[in-house]
Amino acid sequence: MAESEQFLESQPIFELHRGGKMAVQATVPLSSREDLAMAYTPGVAKVCEAISASPALAREYTWIGHTVAVVTDGSAVLGLGNIGPLAAMPVMEGKAILFKQFGGVDAVPICLDTQDTDEIVTIVKALAPSFGGINLEDIASPRCFEIERRLDDSLDIPVFHDDQHGTAIVVVAALRNASRLLGRKFGELRVVISGAGAAGIAVARMLIAGGAADVVVIDSRGVVHSGRTDLNTEKASLASVTNPRGVVGDIGEALRGADVLIGVSGGTVDESALAGMAPGGAIFALANPTPEVHPLIAARYAAVVATGRSDFPNQINNVLAFPGVFRGALDAKAPRITEAMKLAAADAIAAVVADALTADAIVPSPLDPRVAPAVARAVAAAAAPSAPPFSSI
Amino acid sequence: MAESEQFLESQPIFELHRGGKMAVQATVPLSSREDLAMAYTPGVAKVCEAISASPALAREYTWIGHTVAVVTDGSAVLGLGNIGPLAAMPVMEGKAILFKQFGGVDAVPICLDTQDTDEIVTIVKALAPSFGGINLEDIASPRCFEIERRLDDSLDIPVFHDDQHGTAIVVVAALRNASRLLGRKFGELRVVISGAGAAGIAVARMLIAGGAADVVVIDSRGVVHSGRTDLNTEKASLASVTNPRGVVGDIGEALRGADVLIGVSGGTVDESALAGMAPGGAIFALANPTPEVHPLIAARYAAVVATGRSDFPNQINNVLAFPGVFRGALDAKAPRITEAMKLAAADAIAAVVADALTADAIVPSPLDPRVAPAVARAVAAAAAPSAPPFSSI
Repeated sequence: MAESEQFLESQPIFELHRGGKMAVQATVPLSSREDLAMAYTPGVAKVCEAISASPALAREYTWIGHTVAVVTDGSAVLGLGNIGPLAAMPVMEGKAILFKQFGGVDAVPICLDTQDTDEIVTIVKALAPSFGGINLEDIASPRCFEIERRLDDSLDIPVFHDDQHGTAIVVVAALRNASRLLGRKFGELRVVISGAGAAGIAVARMLIAGGAADVVVIDSRGVVHSGRTDLNTEKASLASVTNPRGVVGDIGEALRGADVLIGVSGGTVDESALAGMAPGGAIFALANPTPEVHPLIAARYAAVVATGRSDFPNQINNVLAFPGVFRGALDAKAPRITEAMKLAAADAIAAVVADALTADAIVPSPLDPRVAPAVARAVAAAAAPSAPPFSSI
Repeated sequence: MAESEQFLESQPIFELHRGGKMAVQATVPLSSREDLAMAYTPGVAKVCEAISASPALAREYTWIGHTVAVVTDGSAVLGLGNIGPLAAMPVMEGKAILFKQFGGVDAVPICLDTQDTDEIVTIVKALAPSFGGINLEDIASPRCFEIERRLDDSLDIPVFHDDQHGTAIVVVAALRNASRLLGRKFGELRVVISGAGAAGIAVARMLIAGGAADVVVIDSRGVVHSGRTDLNTEKASLASVTNPRGVVGDIGEALRGADVLIGVSGGTVDESALAGMAPGGAIFALANPTPEVHPLIAARYAAVVATGRSDFPNQINNVLAFPGVFRGALDAKAPRITEAMKLAAADAIAAVVADALTADAIVPSPLDPRVAPAVARAVAAAAAPSAPPFSSI
């Protein structure tokens, strides 16, 4: 379908992209010998020596205090799939400039010419001193889970797989507001997630962390449950914390009486399955550019409809989350991004539009300038108690 | 001694460095939904697909056509030694902004948390799709040689170890002009190089490539010659192409009748050894901040004196070379930086001041705005014939 793409002519897009979308700039003067002697040799040696003696000073006297690497292996780029590192660069540049535009974060696109988990982990660990945080992007599932977990365990800077957590944060924000609007308690919602990839698994986990008690996840073979023998590690783990009513079968079974459908699969959901949902609920059909359910059809079965697209109301767009999340984490010098920080980000996003809640505005516009600062403040505040448990010893 | 450092107060240097010295900027608008739809999803997908089909388009439609990674392992930073990746960052940032200021090249500082040769090679190879060139910086000798060689062999973008080749290019430029000024033919100069690390070896090789016939290199144990059994691979290889008169012994022996002394050792050279030089020659004492010979003493034994310092005439500063070298290589889409390109860079630097040659101005000022464009043009022109030999088939 790709409707929204049809509205975009290719030629202006290529013109815009000529030479790329970003640049580096000096933030200190370099026009006199004195300038060079301060910013470069011999003056710079004093700063190097100070950092060598007190490594924490690197945050104060280099750019790493406000930088993030946007790292991909090019294996799951947008809906394009495994197009490799070079073809992934336009997306990573785009992500980098969104970081700057909305979060004031200086982001560097890093496209890796390897799709080996061990190599990616080794490389990102080696790159870590150069950055204040690592945003993993468009890395295929299930490799993305192991990479993120190993990096998070070994690095003392935030590691954040945006396809998982950025999506999850904005979905939770949207569902917080949808539940208010619909007058249903968040913890009592029956939620079905169609898709058990990076986004689906992260959304499920964050909904549960946020208080949802009845979450059922569907993959291409039906409901994920503990009785299945075909589950990978991630899905098996997911089965143990979801599906409390022990639903089995296909999406039609799962949707019977459900309040919420969250589509993050890229597939389609039959209208017959939607008909079984409890009336007056919510459908988030987030696949891009083709939602799992067309929003006009979804509106027949739900009171609130959201998509990933800019040409319909309620665009669930990660840009609502990642710039503020990293800005807050960097400001707080947080060593990692905890569940509490992510939930705080979701609540902050929801709060921006809470005073003017309508079915067509459960999340702010991606361009709303209030969002990133609010998210940053909330994330930084939530980061404070996240110090290691024995830090006071 | 560190005289020039004594003139720099610490406090203004730290103030200058607060928050680092560089930032990223978007070069496309991001203020409307249309802007986002062009620069990010869904529009960006068209550019990704085009690059996926024709990888060479990445040079046109991403920033890699004008970017360089400044890569270090922090093992040989300035004169500070092995201070590690974090403490190396201020130098790499400084280098990056010099790239931008003088060459219009967008450079990204990458400080690696490993000093293992194989790992560094693996990592930089994996990073290569993200950049148009690799500037290696402050990596200890002899590891730097193997790393550069292996990367140069395996990558199709320029790889350039600035401590070697940047220094060598500017030394050759200075010596071209010194030989003109002194009325001695370049090919007939007797040249002694004190120091057989990265810079010394590269200077020796480039002088020979540029036509010097009598080059003798000294390390901490004396003259490098084929009879020695204590030489590492690099020095043994060097012994086979230098020292045609078979000099043995210490620096005093080597300097007897020499026209030129090039110090790149960081040590000191006794005045008694200088006394044996042919009169009216040249001394380049390039160690920073403490030259091997103080310029006032050097002036007693040579007609032309150069240092690495900004507070004496004839500053041999790599910034005369690297911005233009990479600008030219990127403009020409050169897959590597050949000996011919480096020699062209040296000649271009020398030519900038050739019309107004004096003993106090054998090289341009590091701030001379004519230098980088001239170097870039010369390097790009010299790159043209460097296409792979079978490219026309």
